[in-house]
Amino acid sequence: MEIANICILGAGNLGSRIGLQAALSGFQVTVYDVNQKSLSGSLVTMNKLIKYLIKSQEITEKKGLEAIQRITFTPDPLVAVENADLISESVTEDLDIKKSVWKQFGHIAPAKTIFTTNTSYLLPSMLAEDSGRPKQFCAFHFHDVFHSKVVDIMPHPNTDPELIAVLEDLGRKLNQIPILVKKENSGYIFNTLLVSLIDAAGRLATGEVAEIEAIDKSWMINFNMPIGPFGILDNVGIDTAWHITSVKRNAASRAFADLLKTYIDQGKLGEKSGEGFYKYPNPSYKNSDFLK
Amino acid sequence: MEIANICILGAGNLGSRIGLQAALSGFQVTVYDVNQKSLSGSLVTMNKLIKYLIKSQEITEKKGLEAIQRITFTPDPLVAVENADLISESVTEDLDIKKSVWKQFGHIAPAKTIFTTNTSYLLPSMLAEDSGRPKQFCAFHFHDVFHSKVVDIMPHPNTDPELIAVLEDLGRKLNQIPILVKKENSGYIFNTLLVSLIDAAGRLATGEVAEIEAIDKSWMINFNMPIGPFGILDNVGIDTAWHITSVKRNAASRAFADLLKTYIDQGKLGEKSGEGFYKYPNPSYKNSDFLK
Repeated sequence: MEIANICILGAGNLGSRIGLQAALSGFQVTVYDVNQKSLSGSLVTMNKLIKYLIKSQEITEKKGLEAIQRITFTPDPLVAVENADLISESVTEDLDIKKSVWKQFGHIAPAKTIFTTNTSYLLPSMLAEDSGRPKQFCAFHFHDVFHSKVVDIMPHPNTDPELIAVLEDLGRKLNQIPILVKKENSGYIFNTLLVSLIDAAGRLATGEVAEIEAIDKSWMINFNMPIGPFGILDNVGIDTAWHITSVKRNAASRAFADLLKTYIDQGKLGEKSGEGFYKYPNPSYKNSDFLK
Repeated sequence: MEIANICILGAGNLGSRIGLQAALSGFQVTVYDVNQKSLSGSLVTMNKLIKYLIKSQEITEKKGLEAIQRITFTPDPLVAVENADLISESVTEDLDIKKSVWKQFGHIAPAKTIFTTNTSYLLPSMLAEDSGRPKQFCAFHFHDVFHSKVVDIMPHPNTDPELIAVLEDLGRKLNQIPILVKKENSGYIFNTLLVSLIDAAGRLATGEVAEIEAIDKSWMINFNMPIGPFGILDNVGIDTAWHITSVKRNAASRAFADLLKTYIDQGKLGEKSGEGFYKYPNPSYKNSDFLK
């Protein structure tokens, strides 16, 4: 099937990025949000991204203008899905909210519409039945669209297998590298790997095997990387890491969650709060003398 | 204390690298091995490294020649330790062999000698008593000396705390970044992190969540890395990875060990055998179209 019209549900950061990339790739785009303020914010976000893409010579000014003209922002669900070939849902990462959004849009979307969720940690099988059309439902998960240009395609057991090739093709048209996740797995591939790495770093820290900076140094030097596990944690947000870690029951995870909590209690959430394991905007790991 | 004379036990690849770097840093070096062939091989290895370092403009030809002149190769234990300020032991990674070497050299080394082991996975406390001088005993673990320029300093509970600063200083003189591992931990820091990452990759593969190439792609794109977990495994050696994994008792590790074994049974040990998860010398992950 030919995809021409893409409907974005949720005008937050990722919805805006996916919507803009879709428009830049020549698709007609509608961006829906219940909140009019989010819709205005989405346009601001897109215009900032366009400026950045022009500056880094990835697009021309003309191409940016044309993309914006292909996008309709609307708080009206019917207008949003009117002619949608595909829905990409990026609403709040909350099971109940996502379920109710899929119930609503499953009722009003045209029969042709492919349903995709951009969920980070939920599984498509948790939402597919709510949409009323489980065969047309699949996870289609973007990372940040413009830097990590990768999209995970993760079907649930009842997804129509033919949908996979359609989404792989669409992913490439959206300038992403499609990665097939054959079986449902919370966190897809990358987050599963990253969480394991960070858990191991947490065990070294809570076990007092090494200082946080020593752990990061060891990783950075051996892999010639600009950042180590605790720098990554500051970037992800210590509160987010705590939410993921605190639900695990093993002793090592509990100890690590306790360590993260001591930072949160001091208001140290990472880069966004100005301090976490490192101080921002100039964390020591970025200094030239860190690796000495 | 001033270190001037360094004795290397074991003339294999790492012993040769440490010995050469010590000589390049101006130390007098003796390289000991029971096997005369290993001693000749060590000189060949060092001369190759010198050529490489000259070619990459890290040293001059004169500096390389001077370094070789500072090195004595000997199969005589008494000659090797005669005036040693420090022993760096890199003999075969086998507990019994290392124990007997430390018993032997603990008896004949001068009173001043600092004892260090370059073990990869054993703990210094397993060897310290054999040396007869546990307070002077510490792990001092190099990665590959000339690329990953990092040295782990890992004391056991009875190591003299004053030794740590001496080894940190020596590490810097040997052109390495010293990393303190405060408590004994098998695999130090980096291997603990790497093994966790690889275990997670193994779970994704054996759980049939994703194909091996998809797992590597996801890691490579998101971290902008030239290699993913299975490429690293090919580099480490699938047989080595199997030895580490097969001793673990949990179901996930057993499944992963079984997967590794199917490769070993086909003679696919990774890069060194010409094939592993990828085919060498031109593995697909190095092709420009791998990330598409």
